[in-house]
Amino acid sequence: MFLERVNDPADIKRLTIPELETLSIEIRDFLVQSITSTGGHFGANLGVVELTVALHYVFNSPVDRIVWDVGHQAYVHKILTGRKQDFPTLRQFHGLAGFPKRSESPHDFFGVGHASTSISAALGMAIARDLHKENHHVLAVIGDGAMTGGIAFEALNHAGHLKKRLLVVLNDNEMSISPNVGAISHYLTRLRTDPYYGKIKGELETLLKRIPAFGSRIANTAERFKDTLKYAMVPGMLFEEMGFSYFGPVPGHDIAQVIHLLRQAKEMDGPVILHVITQKGKGYPSAEAAPDKLHSIGGAVVKPKATAPSYTGVFGKTLVDLAKKDKRIVAVTAAMLNSGLNEFALEFPDRCFDVGIAEQHAATLCAGLSTAGMRPIFSVYSTFLQRAYDQVIHDICIQQLPVVIAIDRAGLVGPDGETHQGAFDAAFLRAIPNMTIMMPKDEGELRHMLYTAFTLSGPVAVRFAREDGIGVALDVPYEEIPVGKSEVIREGRDVALLALGPMVAVAENASLMLAERGISAQVVNMRFVKPIDEEALRNLALKNMPIVTIEEGTIKGGLGSAVLEYFALQKLQCSVYPIGLPDHFIEHGSRPELLHQVGLTSEHIAEVAITLVENQHGQKWVNRKTAGR
Amino acid sequence: MFLERVNDPADIKRLTIPELETLSIEIRDFLVQSITSTGGHFGANLGVVELTVALHYVFNSPVDRIVWDVGHQAYVHKILTGRKQDFPTLRQFHGLAGFPKRSESPHDFFGVGHASTSISAALGMAIARDLHKENHHVLAVIGDGAMTGGIAFEALNHAGHLKKRLLVVLNDNEMSISPNVGAISHYLTRLRTDPYYGKIKGELETLLKRIPAFGSRIANTAERFKDTLKYAMVPGMLFEEMGFSYFGPVPGHDIAQVIHLLRQAKEMDGPVILHVITQKGKGYPSAEAAPDKLHSIGGAVVKPKATAPSYTGVFGKTLVDLAKKDKRIVAVTAAMLNSGLNEFALEFPDRCFDVGIAEQHAATLCAGLSTAGMRPIFSVYSTFLQRAYDQVIHDICIQQLPVVIAIDRAGLVGPDGETHQGAFDAAFLRAIPNMTIMMPKDEGELRHMLYTAFTLSGPVAVRFAREDGIGVALDVPYEEIPVGKSEVIREGRDVALLALGPMVAVAENASLMLAERGISAQVVNMRFVKPIDEEALRNLALKNMPIVTIEEGTIKGGLGSAVLEYFALQKLQCSVYPIGLPDHFIEHGSRPELLHQVGLTSEHIAEVAITLVENQHGQKWVNRKTAGR
Repeated sequence: MFLERVNDPADIKRLTIPELETLSIEIRDFLVQSITSTGGHFGANLGVVELTVALHYVFNSPVDRIVWDVGHQAYVHKILTGRKQDFPTLRQFHGLAGFPKRSESPHDFFGVGHASTSISAALGMAIARDLHKENHHVLAVIGDGAMTGGIAFEALNHAGHLKKRLLVVLNDNEMSISPNVGAISHYLTRLRTDPYYGKIKGELETLLKRIPAFGSRIANTAERFKDTLKYAMVPGMLFEEMGFSYFGPVPGHDIAQVIHLLRQAKEMDGPVILHVITQKGKGYPSAEAAPDKLHSIGGAVVKPKATAPSYTGVFGKTLVDLAKKDKRIVAVTAAMLNSGLNEFALEFPDRCFDVGIAEQHAATLCAGLSTAGMRPIFSVYSTFLQRAYDQVIHDICIQQLPVVIAIDRAGLVGPDGETHQGAFDAAFLRAIPNMTIMMPKDEGELRHMLYTAFTLSGPVAVRFAREDGIGVALDVPYEEIPVGKSEVIREGRDVALLALGPMVAVAENASLMLAERGISAQVVNMRFVKPIDEEALRNLALKNMPIVTIEEGTIKGGLGSAVLEYFALQKLQCSVYPIGLPDHFIEHGSRPELLHQVGLTSEHIAEVAITLVENQHGQKWVNRKTAGR
Repeated sequence: MFLERVNDPADIKRLTIPELETLSIEIRDFLVQSITSTGGHFGANLGVVELTVALHYVFNSPVDRIVWDVGHQAYVHKILTGRKQDFPTLRQFHGLAGFPKRSESPHDFFGVGHASTSISAALGMAIARDLHKENHHVLAVIGDGAMTGGIAFEALNHAGHLKKRLLVVLNDNEMSISPNVGAISHYLTRLRTDPYYGKIKGELETLLKRIPAFGSRIANTAERFKDTLKYAMVPGMLFEEMGFSYFGPVPGHDIAQVIHLLRQAKEMDGPVILHVITQKGKGYPSAEAAPDKLHSIGGAVVKPKATAPSYTGVFGKTLVDLAKKDKRIVAVTAAMLNSGLNEFALEFPDRCFDVGIAEQHAATLCAGLSTAGMRPIFSVYSTFLQRAYDQVIHDICIQQLPVVIAIDRAGLVGPDGETHQGAFDAAFLRAIPNMTIMMPKDEGELRHMLYTAFTLSGPVAVRFAREDGIGVALDVPYEEIPVGKSEVIREGRDVALLALGPMVAVAENASLMLAERGISAQVVNMRFVKPIDEEALRNLALKNMPIVTIEEGTIKGGLGSAVLEYFALQKLQCSVYPIGLPDHFIEHGSRPELLHQVGLTSEHIAEVAITLVENQHGQKWVNRKTAGR
């Protein structure tokens, strides 16, 4: 076993090529065993085993700096840099992170989670290296899917201009999370498959030599013509045009060839792109066959089979149903078809647009569609919507265009950690004029909210949790939900619990605990973060009821703030206590663990409510109530 | 005069080419007269006179849809679409907008202001057209500078994939706001200047025909070779690789040629890019000579020569000074060198990076630089920082990297209107953990804040207004401002005015008005939006002083919310009234007009303060005080 002896990249430099091949097999076995038990990103890591081994063989981390794009393919890198013993804790609370993380290892130069950032970050490191007059290598390892992100293009454009020494390894597995779309993807396919590109250069040079000489004008042309051939014949001309030297494509599971080309690339000055062809899920037949299905797996720690469908599932089914009745509905996703849109894409292939990893374009595309009479819906994770913030403001909200934004994974997401927690969308969207923001308390209400969203004439966000529903009936007729109206779930006299989304159920549970203490809590399903239900708030203030707001998003600027702002502007006195996500980034862990950690539990809500009631009525009053039971 | 008779695009369709040429001269005269008196974007509009005339001659707006990127070059379009009589009100309060606006004309299909959105929006319209089975044309007119924005690339990639009929007119004036940077810019320069590209195709075809026949293997090669020539010889190969048909480059001031090529492009199916070379400032010698200086001019309505330098100017000088003492300081801008960085770029060319219109890349580049020991500063307008929101969260703040973000034009900007108001940055940055946000009350404090920012070990935003300073001394030593500490400007007993940035002076003025009414107002320069000065707030609450918060940013999630959240979480009772920007987009107008409209005036602040004091002490108390004087 070579793997046992590898605790540092230096350990693999002593191995021979056949030994590296054996090591790769061992790593693949280790990955399969490890991920099938803990869960995690599967296909991407199986695809880069040889590439990662070769990178650490040829380069000298942490002197040389390797930046992993997205980072879900960095498991092999983690194994080779002294973290293999931590794999049983992968993506678990206080365990090994699923992505590179600067605090985890000196070999992790840049934390990631979202796609397409690696070239920018690596270029920054290359600039710094030259300013410091140092001499190490800087690499970005980026997938073909991530290459469709606008920031990757911005970085290529800048790097091609600056001419800094920088190696971009394009890990082309013909597949991002969903199958790739876009012209770049076609282009890469042509590079991979057209025998004309790779092989013909030699033949053409022979051909050129046979061109007879003509008069001087034509002879000059022929000279320039030869120059051009360099471009025409070199595969990767698009990258060459952007100022990069292009190497490849090289078969990424042939470790000797990859090492050979990495060594060549290492000697080059200026920006270089090395195009490596890998196969997602390599060595694991079921992952090879359906790589997008096995992008990430939940692991053997399976929770009991849910009886209720997930919010994402209900979203997908509802959208298909609504689109059958309204031809104007079109769906847009940024490489996330699998998140609820698969059925829609099958049912309405002409009305479904996967734009690649390109959230900015997706949002403005929706704006354009809606100016021309369509009813677009942009399906996106909360955390990825951050990429389209300006477009939501500038293209959708300023123009009051009826675009529906379906925000999946609003709130805590669990094992993906900091980069994926949907902590900010309620706050950053609430700041934008003309925006309506709703969140359903259960999967049934999600149906009604989606239905309602398409009846409105301006921008609407419908947020939902990364959760299973609670099992309510889904075959009831659609209801239009009045905009800005909350719903009283349980009447009460002493304190009001204003909750959002899945927190409504948690608040209901808290009200039962409070009832046992003799405190009568009103439970309100707020439904809208914006516009907030002002009438309901006014009534609570007039009744002198203290309020607890409960949301699975940052306190800074969220639902609680909306309530506080309303009372302040109305000069109404009312004591309000906001419970939500604290002002730090939330690490990976299971949703229940994380909710407990941040205090989004019935117990904590009940405690807070008791304190507020004590403040309002005096502690004796509470004690008396409690004793009276 | 042809111009007098043009009130609709239909009116120009009857003219001959020579008449269109005369019309273009008249339009140019009209623009020069009009803009020199009202102010506005100058060079860009002079550059597109013939192009715009040709577009409206060949296409049929508003059946065909023309989408203008950025939109500051749409004046000629406005002139030709019935708005020339409104030009005396250009960019003035309630007057003609400086950008296209859907509410202004049926010929304005998409509102703009920020760069690089046009292809996405136009693609949306093209998709909708095909779904509706309509047959009109959709065009995006985009500058070479805007082409460097990531969203433009995302849109090209998607359009090249979908193959929808769509015409992208690349208006290449070799200049965005600052001279262009980036590989794409080099590429376009080569297309423009290399005689080999444009002319040689015919010659090469002749040449090819003379290649003698060889054995079948080579013959096949020759066939494929001819195919390739199409790419190699066609200028614009980079666009062809992305799935576009490329036409051009065509000289953009030759109206007959532009019309000829537009007609050709109109007949094409699928996505087409037409490369038009124009000259910014064409026909106005001083604008031709220094086009970046004359991007936008203030107009003849000149305010009295300021005695104090602008915040932007002080920022630029301070940064040069700090960078002389600290070699680690590097500056990054997204095509906005003119905004304070010109001197830095001259002084430290190796440490200044203009990345083009690419805010996302700029932010992550800064993150990368800071991981490698540099102290990067990203100089950016508030409204453009919206483009980099995810990168600020994901690349800078999660990793707690010491990146300084210098946010220019925080608050109202005036004549540029909705798309440019710096209304949201305090709110959207405050939601992010690890972020420090400051704003100086005057240009002297800006120096100290920049100095302080570089002493901190995490992300810092220093926001400043689009204003002149107030004339304080700038030759004093730097002072480190304690993080999260406010400054009492004026002691008071009855009410506290907590103000941010230039609002501190407005609050001071309000305190004088209040003093005349016998009310003693404490004026506090808050300095920090985050972390907020909790100690100061606690003391005010303990003294039972009502608070007015005053900020030139949205109330939803801003400084006022921060104060409210603090009191709520501390369960402190304190009456707080937030004054700031209301929850709607603020149109164009002068800063004083807009500030008055939204109530950010001393008078309104004083009124609010009086009401709070009345609520606190009873109206009689206030009347008595007032009478006592």
